[in-house]
Parts: sequence; structure tokens; C-alpha cells
Amino acid sequence: MDKFVEKTLSTEQIYSGKIVHLQVDKVMLPDGKIATRELIKHPGAVAVIAINDDNKLILVEQYRKPCERTLVEIPAGKLEQGEDPKQAAVRELEEETGYVAKELKYITSFYSSPGFADELLHIYFTDKLVKSDDPREADEDEFVEVLELSLQEAKQYAAIQKICDAKTNYAVLYLEMQEMMQR
Amino acid sequence: MDKFVEKTLSTEQIYSGKIVHLQVDKVMLPDGKIATRELIKHPGAVAVIAINDDNKLILVEQYRKPCERTLVEIPAGKLEQGEDPKQAAVRELEEETGYVAKELKYITSFYSSPGFADELLHIYFTDKLVKSDDPREADEDEFVEVLELSLQEAKQYAAIQKICDAKTNYAVLYLEMQEMMQR
Repeated sequence: MDKFVEKTLSTEQIYSGKIVHLQVDKVMLPDGKIATRELIKHPGAVAVIAINDDNKLILVEQYRKPCERTLVEIPAGKLEQGEDPKQAAVRELEEETGYVAKELKYITSFYSSPGFADELLHIYFTDKLVKSDDPREADEDEFVEVLELSLQEAKQYAAIQKICDAKTNYAVLYLEMQEMMQR
Repeated sequence: MDKFVEKTLSTEQIYSGKIVHLQVDKVMLPDGKIATRELIKHPGAVAVIAINDDNKLILVEQYRKPCERTLVEIPAGKLEQGEDPKQAAVRELEEETGYVAKELKYITSFYSSPGFADELLHIYFTDKLVKSDDPREADEDEFVEVLELSLQEAKQYAAIQKICDAKTNYAVLYLEMQEMMQR
């Protein structure tokens, strides 16, 4: 049973875009008072921690307009309507990097920013990769460059905040822990 | 030097709220084509991985309207205008849990969802806590319940996705790794 449920009294649709939808809800708080909530609706997304045969982590470098800077991230993308997350993960990995995952292991799912958005991010892991001869093409407004880094290099990128987003920082910690467990 | 910079051609302000601001930019892509970008502007936020004298992780349970469910998260909150992140971390921790941090260690910062939002989250750690006799009050529209869990219990919560957000999943991994390094 959910605690402190905020009952929706009314919903105002503000904007419906290609990626985000913004609505403002009036809600009744547990004490009966009224509050407003600004809510970003998002289709959800997938991300892949992908390790190649040289034991390198596959990353993509891209310009992130909201942050006005280039970031180095694990391959990721939003779910298309009705798309299975695992299939989306295979698709995004191939589109962004040219690698095809022969196997994918589900790791976890988490909300990226539950205070204002419902984006749920599904994280997968693979170390079973083949290079595609004829890779699917990325979206035409996406410019990405593939990087292949050792875990040591990825930790270095995180230390200087070239890696600087929740899913990729999570991925680096995840790999560090895997490595430590194997010792 | 940033790669693949997307030059802003025009900005349309869509909504300016209490927490999020939405704008839609027309940008010039590296190949000269034009694209639109939906951008959420956010003041940034802080979160605290806080361990008490019983070696328990301090968490807060709250209803997250965007996700329409109750989540268990590390204490967090958005920056007030001009506020120093470290001071915000102390303030949010006290408001949400009644604990005062005598020391805070900076861990890292990351964007929660760089594809559509500029929210930068600063993560701190403390195991130097005292209970406040007269804690600062939380925002009046915030209903939170404090939970104190062992790392083992927190891992269990993550496994069943009662813990299910980027910063808290990161925190659980971070603590697991600290514990492993101490062995």
C-alpha cells in the first residue's frame, strides 16, 4: 500500500513534445491541503553496460544540449512506443556503436529524477559483442563518437567529470565492484 | 573543446514553474541541419549518503507524484537560488531526517538525465551525525518518513525495487564497495 498518496484533483496539459510531456497537477496532500506538482512524462529509456573482447567499456561521446557540454556516456536511448526494453537496448547499442549484443543480462531499473519526471531507466549488461557488418543507423539528429575505455580509464574520466551522468557513474561503480568480487 | 556543439538559433520559453522550466530550442547540428531540442532547466540538487552511529543508512520514504508511487530514497532536495551545494546538503538532511551532519565529504556530481534536463546532482557522504534537538522543518507540502536500514536491508529494498532511483541505487553500490574495500 502506497503511503502519503497525493490524489490528483485536476491536470493541466502544458506541452507535448517529441521526448517530454509537461503537465501540472493539482493534488490533495495527506493533510487535506492542496499543492501543485510539475510533472514531466517520459516514455522511459534503456542503457547498456557493454564490454568488448579487449575488456574495454563501450562509451559514446555526444553533445548534450540541456547541459551545453559534451558528455561521455554508456549507450542509451528512449523506448519507442510499445517497445520491449531488452529489444530497445539491443537496438540502441547497435545504432550508437555498431556492436550487436548476442546476450544481454538485466541489471536493474531506476527512476532518473523522481522528483519531477517519471523516466524509468532499465540497465543491461553484456560482454558478448560482435561488430555488425551493416549496423543500423542512428537517428539523423544524433552525432555520437564511440570510445572504448579500460575500467581504469573510465574511472579517470569519472574523476575529471568527463563521465558525469547518473547511469554512467552507476556503470563505472558496477564494473569496479564486479572486478573487486573477481579478485 | 566540446565536440558536436549544437548552436542555439532560437529559444521558445514554454513554461516557468516552481521546480522546472521548459524551453524548446532550435539548434544547428554539426552537419548544418536544423533540429529542435526540448530542454528542462532545473536549479540542481544535492543528496546525502548518511550513516548513523548504528551503521544504518538514513533513508526517506515519500510519495513521488511523477511516478505515482512511494519510493525509498537517500535524503535529497533542490538547491535554493545561490545556495552552496554543501550547505544545501546539510539543510536538506536536517529538514528531512532531523539529523545534523558534523562533517560532509563530497563524493561526486552527475546529471540525472542529460538527454532532456540539466539537473546536476551533487552527492555527499557523512557518518558524523547528531540528532538535532530542534530540527528545521521540511517544506509544508513534503510528507516524508525516515527509515534507517542496514546495508543488507537496503540491498534487499533495491532488489525488490522499493529503492528505485538513480541516486539511491548509486548510494547502495557505493556503500557495498566501501564495505568490500574494508574487508
